[in-house]
Amino acid sequence: MNDRTIIEVIPNPLVRSMPTWVPPSLFKKRFTATSHPKRMHLNESPYPPSPSVIDAMKKACEAVNRYPDAHWQALVTALAERTGIPAARIVLGNGSDELIASAGRIALMPGDTVIAPVPSFASFAKAALINGASLRAVKVRKDGACDVEAMLEAIDETTRLLFLATPNNPTGAMLTASEVRKVAMEVPETCLLVVDEAYHEFAMQAGGEDPLPVLNTRTGPWVVFRSFSKAYGLAGIRVGYGICGSEEVVGGFQLARNAFTVNAIAQAGALAALQDTEHMESIVAAMATERERVSAGLRGLGCETFPSVANFVTARTRLAAVDVMKALEARGILISRLSTKGFENHIRVTVGKSEETNALLSEMRKILEA
Amino acid sequence: MNDRTIIEVIPNPLVRSMPTWVPPSLFKKRFTATSHPKRMHLNESPYPPSPSVIDAMKKACEAVNRYPDAHWQALVTALAERTGIPAARIVLGNGSDELIASAGRIALMPGDTVIAPVPSFASFAKAALINGASLRAVKVRKDGACDVEAMLEAIDETTRLLFLATPNNPTGAMLTASEVRKVAMEVPETCLLVVDEAYHEFAMQAGGEDPLPVLNTRTGPWVVFRSFSKAYGLAGIRVGYGICGSEEVVGGFQLARNAFTVNAIAQAGALAALQDTEHMESIVAAMATERERVSAGLRGLGCETFPSVANFVTARTRLAAVDVMKALEARGILISRLSTKGFENHIRVTVGKSEETNALLSEMRKILEA
Repeated sequence: MNDRTIIEVIPNPLVRSMPTWVPPSLFKKRFTATSHPKRMHLNESPYPPSPSVIDAMKKACEAVNRYPDAHWQALVTALAERTGIPAARIVLGNGSDELIASAGRIALMPGDTVIAPVPSFASFAKAALINGASLRAVKVRKDGACDVEAMLEAIDETTRLLFLATPNNPTGAMLTASEVRKVAMEVPETCLLVVDEAYHEFAMQAGGEDPLPVLNTRTGPWVVFRSFSKAYGLAGIRVGYGICGSEEVVGGFQLARNAFTVNAIAQAGALAALQDTEHMESIVAAMATERERVSAGLRGLGCETFPSVANFVTARTRLAAVDVMKALEARGILISRLSTKGFENHIRVTVGKSEETNALLSEMRKILEA
Repeated sequence: MNDRTIIEVIPNPLVRSMPTWVPPSLFKKRFTATSHPKRMHLNESPYPPSPSVIDAMKKACEAVNRYPDAHWQALVTALAERTGIPAARIVLGNGSDELIASAGRIALMPGDTVIAPVPSFASFAKAALINGASLRAVKVRKDGACDVEAMLEAIDETTRLLFLATPNNPTGAMLTASEVRKVAMEVPETCLLVVDEAYHEFAMQAGGEDPLPVLNTRTGPWVVFRSFSKAYGLAGIRVGYGICGSEEVVGGFQLARNAFTVNAIAQAGALAALQDTEHMESIVAAMATERERVSAGLRGLGCETFPSVANFVTARTRLAAVDVMKALEARGILISRLSTKGFENHIRVTVGKSEETNALLSEMRKILEA
């Protein structure tokens, strides 16, 4: 909306010096609502949630003149039952994006340091920047997983926040429990450890280990973020949650939040989704099959792929990713690309339905052979 | 969730020193979902939105696997048409509460000063506190409106943010356009002027003047916040919007926001609500009638009332407000009270349907005569 880099009228010099930020465009200009491009760019689920979830949300639509439950009681109780973590240690957010921003807010003062993997989710860097903290971006390992050793080495006495992501977006690689344990043990108590598990359910389907038991042995502050946006097919309603190491950490997130964060219909939908996990699991399994088709297909076209366990595949192509993206867009397929320096030839493709895989691979063949 | 005042594990000393904050409880423990207390405590609408709004939201429930439009294009376009302000100067929030927090975020550094009326909306003080700024709370005039003269006098070279609220919650009093003009002219350009108009539609119904034309003459940064929560009966879906003085101010709010803030169902609902303003206006008119009944009734019981134009009435009773609130709660009626020092006998009653007015006045008579 505004292409100046200096927001001259904003009083806060920290904010004024930030680069302009534009949220992701969901509809490119050339597409109209009726032309239906294939959406393989935002790691959305191609499947709607279970019919019981839609019914629960529709019912909630009738009572929207009332505020949502600011304490998310029913949802927190259901999450406590599902995770085995007491309800008093769970916090909800308007998407886990809100919780990532809050983590930065409650942990950081100007001059502090944040450690995060790169390439990874852009919100980690933003959480550092807006609070005047500096980011130490630690390059992921060759397999795309967070480089635990290098991240721990990057910690110094100014470090107040460390973001771990498993599986990591955009590489799709996950950590073992013993790798997470090492982080949980070695990150100092003066540093908030955030483990972003937005793709948790995909990791579980792929035989990954739940990091919660090892995190529970950490004495310093920590929080795990999970999401209803991906496996549960609920990106549109914005529900993420944080499982905190202690009630004190929850208290910190409570200070940073607004009164009514998670919309009433969203709370109803997420609650219903937890009551039909079979639907979610069947979708995750279908996506895993399709993911392997996308990976193998791209490798067959000469691309190098990261070994993803999530609902996306990142691949290095022989062409600049920006050109591949544009060429696919012209053919009705939206994909994403990595904006990290050194990854200019890397595209990220969200796994969709089998016809989307077919279209992607067929168009990619034409583009790469042109 | 946490009753300690010191969040010892949180790295940021600013946040650690904040008093514990607990969001409003919507359901007191003694009430079950089936006992249906009268909700006269949160300034909600007692009426659901128009049927076309509910239909639009139900339709949106079917496509929640996709992210919401991060640019809110349809909604911003509709708001631009309605307000006459260009779309590029409008920003959406997950409730205007989110925008109030963002205003603090983009305007304030530790040591800065915020000016806000008191008693007023609690989020103003919180926006100061969490950013390490100090709050200069300026007592409202006798009629409950913001004391424009005193607020302007409170400004000094450290002031970076001034919150004006019209109509002011909890007093319900509004400012004239010439009073708003004085603020718009005299607040320095180094200070962000926020005008909270959450009850705008009620002010219009009561013959108030739209502050937009006079704000448009201000050269320094400003933003007006409005809401779908009150007059439109959409508190449950969390949609507020900011009309900004310039695209640069919008740029500031864009920096502070997360990628996907307003839920997809909420965007659909708010858009449909703008297409049926007759429904909203008929509800606002009904509430105005009921508000006068509540005011007159409370005065008839010996209470002093502020002259409210909004969907609530604040009254001074001869008893402590906390006792009145508890006594009403025991009788199935939820109300609110002022937490500001010097206002210990003031209750705030949200206007509901006529049967709620009847019940409130009848129970208040018993309580005050006991």
